Amino acid sequence: ALTIKNSGSAKNDISAIIYSPLNEAILPHAIICYFNALLFFTDLLPALNGDAKTMNFLQEVVDIMLAYIVESFDRSTKVIDFHYPNELLQRNNWELSDEPETLDDILISCRATLKYAIKTAHPRYFNQLSTGLDMVGLAADWLTSTANTNMFTYEVAPVFVLLEYVTLKKMREIIGWQDGRGDGIFSPGGAISNMYAMLLARYKMFPEVKEKGMSSVPRLVAFTSEHSHFSIKKGAAALGIGTESVICIKADERGKMIPSDLERRIIEAKQKGYVPFFVSATAGTTVYGAFDPLMAIADICKKHDIWMHVDGAWGGSLLMSRKHRWKLNGVERANSMTWNPHKMMAVPLQCSALLVREEGLMQSCNQMQACYLFQQDKQYDLSYDTGDKALQCGRHVDIFKLWLMWRAKGTIGFEAQIDKCLELSEYLYNKIKDREGYEMVFDGKPQHTNVCFWYLPPGVRYLEDKVEKMKRLHKVAPVIKARMMEYGTTMVSYQPQGDKVNFFRMVISNPAATFEDIDFLIEEIERLGQDL
Amino acid sequence: ALTIKNSGSAKNDISAIIYSPLNEAILPHAIICYFNALLFFTDLLPALNGDAKTMNFLQEVVDIMLAYIVESFDRSTKVIDFHYPNELLQRNNWELSDEPETLDDILISCRATLKYAIKTAHPRYFNQLSTGLDMVGLAADWLTSTANTNMFTYEVAPVFVLLEYVTLKKMREIIGWQDGRGDGIFSPGGAISNMYAMLLARYKMFPEVKEKGMSSVPRLVAFTSEHSHFSIKKGAAALGIGTESVICIKADERGKMIPSDLERRIIEAKQKGYVPFFVSATAGTTVYGAFDPLMAIADICKKHDIWMHVDGAWGGSLLMSRKHRWKLNGVERANSMTWNPHKMMAVPLQCSALLVREEGLMQSCNQMQACYLFQQDKQYDLSYDTGDKALQCGRHVDIFKLWLMWRAKGTIGFEAQIDKCLELSEYLYNKIKDREGYEMVFDGKPQHTNVCFWYLPPGVRYLEDKVEKMKRLHKVAPVIKARMMEYGTTMVSYQPQGDKVNFFRMVISNPAATFEDIDFLIEEIERLGQDL
Repeated sequence: ALTIKNSGSAKNDISAIIYSPLNEAILPHAIICYFNALLFFTDLLPALNGDAKTMNFLQEVVDIMLAYIVESFDRSTKVIDFHYPNELLQRNNWELSDEPETLDDILISCRATLKYAIKTAHPRYFNQLSTGLDMVGLAADWLTSTANTNMFTYEVAPVFVLLEYVTLKKMREIIGWQDGRGDGIFSPGGAISNMYAMLLARYKMFPEVKEKGMSSVPRLVAFTSEHSHFSIKKGAAALGIGTESVICIKADERGKMIPSDLERRIIEAKQKGYVPFFVSATAGTTVYGAFDPLMAIADICKKHDIWMHVDGAWGGSLLMSRKHRWKLNGVERANSMTWNPHKMMAVPLQCSALLVREEGLMQSCNQMQACYLFQQDKQYDLSYDTGDKALQCGRHVDIFKLWLMWRAKGTIGFEAQIDKCLELSEYLYNKIKDREGYEMVFDGKPQHTNVCFWYLPPGVRYLEDKVEKMKRLHKVAPVIKARMMEYGTTMVSYQPQGDKVNFFRMVISNPAATFEDIDFLIEEIERLGQDL
Repeated sequence: ALTIKNSGSAKNDISAIIYSPLNEAILPHAIICYFNALLFFTDLLPALNGDAKTMNFLQEVVDIMLAYIVESFDRSTKVIDFHYPNELLQRNNWELSDEPETLDDILISCRATLKYAIKTAHPRYFNQLSTGLDMVGLAADWLTSTANTNMFTYEVAPVFVLLEYVTLKKMREIIGWQDGRGDGIFSPGGAISNMYAMLLARYKMFPEVKEKGMSSVPRLVAFTSEHSHFSIKKGAAALGIGTESVICIKADERGKMIPSDLERRIIEAKQKGYVPFFVSATAGTTVYGAFDPLMAIADICKKHDIWMHVDGAWGGSLLMSRKHRWKLNGVERANSMTWNPHKMMAVPLQCSALLVREEGLMQSCNQMQACYLFQQDKQYDLSYDTGDKALQCGRHVDIFKLWLMWRAKGTIGFEAQIDKCLELSEYLYNKIKDREGYEMVFDGKPQHTNVCFWYLPPGVRYLEDKVEKMKRLHKVAPVIKARMMEYGTTMVSYQPQGDKVNFFRMVISNPAATFEDIDFLIEEIERLGQDL
């Protein structure tokens, strides 16, 4: 019984303690539980002789997780065991107290937490842009937690700093920047990546803003489409630019920015004496999945000498697909790009990259040269101390899961995964576009995996009073969604948009989803909505 | 052999597949390796019949990690197996390619990554403010990765949103805000938490800044001590306030802000027509571990009607100790506080909280009300959709590890851990304060675990030329540090400060450290530095 557990680099002595046939013989399940009930955190490492107890405890947590993982992929289990907040608060003891609990109680808390969690790996979980659970990515995230370090210097994260270097370079090559040159960073999410881009654009045009603030510069204005992500406005508010200085450019009926409107608004802003400094084009909008026409936008940015950013948090991953990357043609002309592998590439949360074409700019924009951290007399090449580029001081290691998944899949593995999700969304689109009771929010094949549609239950479908019909239809999606959550069978998002009443926004980023899951979703919507 | 692995909630059928005596009998180690060499990520879940292969693969990764954990606490192993960047690049194949690698290669990469990682859990790793590896915290972080969800709404993170609510309330009670009322958020680190505080202070005074930007407000100035963390200036640069508008207040010889200088500079700024809006006091400075006099600062802030922030990223955790919390007396009068459990409470990275006294302010300051995410017609109480308070959209789950550790330790467990670290630092201080060859950077018992000192090797100790002595002494710490890393025996930080040449900054946050490790550090410094 020893050999199988002693694979890899596990040390003989430890494996022997935990996995010896003797222990297994004398410690059946009931005894182990009793054992944990008498154990406390103080029995674990670094306690003297804590090795065996620690490995036993961690193995029990692993067993709980492994069971959860297998269950998550099982279509016969619920996506969610939903309870209202007040009810959930009463279903377990979640309170914090002065006294310690036993390790047995800790295991109970772990089980309860997973019991009431959303199974984001479930093949029928479609609720967000980030879905699925990649096994290699998960292993890498566990390892990252175990290494428990910080990205600020090479000194404390040598491997991770190198892997960030290797991976960012690869991503820049894929964007199409010569020899993969440029800069970049992994940030805590797309909103922060977009904020970095805006910060860099401002600094590039007015470097004095770093010392002197916004009062030293003319009124700056940024441009983005009315369908872009709210983080552009959130960033502008934080950076002291103000949301009113983010000019929303009209989008066409498919949700793509209209370049002529962009140019018109730029000229208008200049005429008012404002300084256009930043255009954020979107590659894959949140709701429609639209790709702004990057080539035309690049022409305008070049003509007016404005920083061009591409928010590819959602759609950037299509660069990995030979079949779909044309949708981002022109991205190679951008000054910066947000690309979140935690969305369409199904890397575990969080994993968001900002890529920047100009080298050195992030460093000069953000550095403060703290001498307790970035000592200039270290023994190694200081260009690997990349932390001062960041707005953060400590920075979580987000690189390893992406890097390890890339090793496991190769670029072609990611490509296959992405192509499959797009194929599924086309299948869904074809299935419902002419189906009775469905109406598409916009015409034509989706560019990304977003399929936006209304389901009109029989009771709404034939209403003649248009106002009443819209009023009733607006309530359909929220009710069906609430029922989905109560039954726990599937989850999909909905929202209104402009003057359009609530519609479903289906997105597919989960590599576990199949054609049958799409069929199921449609059947489920009809089952849950037929009486409305 | 089956019973011991089938503890907890693992399903019988799965356990049987992996752990049955039959499999173990027919799959000795060599065969397993060969097996993985032929397996690819496509064999893992969600692949059909991927359960057993997935559990086998994940178990192998777990075995690698368990061995690493046990090794990390073993004083006979190296803290670091150091290699220069170019050398490390050549020691393994770190490149990304088009083609997938086998799962066996993935396991090799996992082993290589840990081989060259810093053992941050090692009892002799003192390099950063975040050290140590808590076994319950690690288990919780693994579970968080497995749950792989996002904090933006209750819908997708019901348990974690509730636990954040429970924990933030508890932290506010400990600060001393009535009934634990107020607000807060877990952010990706102390720098971002501090930036939030500055953003809130500005918004509180000039809410129009959100829409109209900094050009709509008078020139704002912020105040912080010259010993404060660089993130205050970094935040000011990002928010469009500018680093020149951060006025550095003099600190006394122990590194504490001098309140009279604060008031003088506030009055001076007002006379120039500037608007003081933010004072950031530090509870536990990065280098000296000094606690600013919060009560006196609170009086000044109240008098001049300025937002008082306490940057307790490092020292905030002393609130958990009945013996040491007096050092933060006055924090209950602050408007906001940064408190990083990932530092002195040894919660795995990242775990940083911003606590805010006023309820509702974060929401109105940061919300953008994206209708695709924060639908107003959901079935549950929308106050649990806390995501729109954040600057981020997606937000990593940082709460579970803190919450689970708190359950395991109780408040008294954290207290004991913190008290022990402070006791160790006092031991170090007493040991070296009169020891030959040592000089303290500042006099008196340290307030936090920071002990700042020079080691003067015999060759420097007796030099009479003061300029030459300082010049030589400046080079001592970097050389000793480089040698520490090359031998891999221990790691401690050093830096210059103002006109003071390089000195060691010893900090203790690792619960694994003992008196013997402190003795070892001193012996090691002397061993590595005696010839200098």
